[in-house]
Amino acid sequence: MNQPIPTNLTLVSRNRSFGGWQSVYRHHSAVLDCEMNFGVYLPPQAETQSCPVLYWLSGLTCTEQNFISKAGAQQFAAQYGVIVVAPDTSPRGCNVPGEEDSWDLGTGAGFYLNATQMPWAKHYRMYDYVVSELPEAIAANFPVMAIRGIFGHSMGGYGALAIALKNPGMFKSVSAFSPIVTPSLVPWGQKAFQNYLGDNKSDWLAYDPMHLIKSAPERLPILLDQGDADQFLGEQLQPDVFAQACAEVNHPLTLRKQPGYDHSYYFIASFIGDHFAHHAAALAQPGF
Amino acid sequence: MNQPIPTNLTLVSRNRSFGGWQSVYRHHSAVLDCEMNFGVYLPPQAETQSCPVLYWLSGLTCTEQNFISKAGAQQFAAQYGVIVVAPDTSPRGCNVPGEEDSWDLGTGAGFYLNATQMPWAKHYRMYDYVVSELPEAIAANFPVMAIRGIFGHSMGGYGALAIALKNPGMFKSVSAFSPIVTPSLVPWGQKAFQNYLGDNKSDWLAYDPMHLIKSAPERLPILLDQGDADQFLGEQLQPDVFAQACAEVNHPLTLRKQPGYDHSYYFIASFIGDHFAHHAAALAQPGF
Repeated sequence: MNQPIPTNLTLVSRNRSFGGWQSVYRHHSAVLDCEMNFGVYLPPQAETQSCPVLYWLSGLTCTEQNFISKAGAQQFAAQYGVIVVAPDTSPRGCNVPGEEDSWDLGTGAGFYLNATQMPWAKHYRMYDYVVSELPEAIAANFPVMAIRGIFGHSMGGYGALAIALKNPGMFKSVSAFSPIVTPSLVPWGQKAFQNYLGDNKSDWLAYDPMHLIKSAPERLPILLDQGDADQFLGEQLQPDVFAQACAEVNHPLTLRKQPGYDHSYYFIASFIGDHFAHHAAALAQPGF
Repeated sequence: MNQPIPTNLTLVSRNRSFGGWQSVYRHHSAVLDCEMNFGVYLPPQAETQSCPVLYWLSGLTCTEQNFISKAGAQQFAAQYGVIVVAPDTSPRGCNVPGEEDSWDLGTGAGFYLNATQMPWAKHYRMYDYVVSELPEAIAANFPVMAIRGIFGHSMGGYGALAIALKNPGMFKSVSAFSPIVTPSLVPWGQKAFQNYLGDNKSDWLAYDPMHLIKSAPERLPILLDQGDADQFLGEQLQPDVFAQACAEVNHPLTLRKQPGYDHSYYFIASFIGDHFAHHAAALAQPGF
């Protein structure tokens, strides 16, 4: 019944959920130079076979807890036989000056990039953490196939798109809820990029989905859900601008404006089943 | 798209969820003599017709938030066309001496009874609040049929059973997750009953499902889910003792021991769909 606990990870919590196990582990991240928590859901299928992995990236202020407790993902992960990994959103407890001063920079706001500017550059390397170190830890400790998808919400939706676009071949599928698709053009992204990457805006483009989509060597179909009552729509979230950019290069995008929905996890939970269906179709393997 | 806000209620939050609306309202409770929050989920069907109501009672330490954000109930409420009402678990902010001293008495631990002892008797009247005042507020403000079910978790599972057994005809269906079925015999119930009701144990029996089941004039079938890895099983939760009492009077009970599940909302979310199916079968009306 109980899965063995990987020896290089510390078990923080483990709860039976939809026939599988929702766990939280802590490990030392060499990339971030701190202890990090992440959530892992193992579906029932993982007891007897390897499974594809779906990475979820959360938004500003979140820890791994928001997604695992509120999104209702386990129901669908169990249905489709997918392992779901949910990292934290920034390094924690590194005592970087200023990291606790605002909710949209520093702690809880790592923006899934590698900072080049002081005082952030030593610890704020969430891009390398999510792209390299975390997948290696997952592969070393859980029964995963080398078949991955990635999705996320808001800052994490931006992260999922940027990471998928920057790493052709790494993911079979990508989707996003209310993503920051034009970070170079909106206050959240500008504040993060300026502080983490500096004033040279050409450096920002390396993480900007709007820019990356133009030269994407891979054409992963993107599912993008956006609530039309989202308080951040327009000022921070510009799905129509992104859709235009996708159209110009014929990148496959399904943009759904969901009437009456806001930026909350109630929105995510309402459509997470559709996102799992989108990913499962791409992650499915013969015999799986 | 937007439901009108009832004029005697203050809207705390409203989120679109599975095609309906998950709201939290605040109102003045005359019974409890304080302001109270409660959650209401209106399914899409409520925009055009009246719907049955399912009352959820939460466990120790909870507010209305735990259930509405973690249980995944909205998916099934929308599927079956049921309004779900989730009250808080005690009066709040009444400055009753000692109410903040422990997590299992006072604030967050109202035990769905009418206290007779000082200093609790003035405010701690959750039984009357849940049985009378709240349903009247719901009926006055939302498109409800006079068809009700009730369910809950732990202290709220006890509350659901006690309230259903004490009010034959009021509910069409009842179920519980890990309920305190023998409160007079276990530490949580004994502490609450002694403080709220006094030393006379015969007064405790009026709220004790084990006692009430013996003379229940109504035979509502009970669905009871209990995780077998629940940390409180045995000391606080005694489903087998309750099953024995049900068997002795031929009260219909479906007791399910769920292997590996604990006391958390991960357990509740895993089986809430089954509970909705149980209630929906009883709440369904011709033409609904």
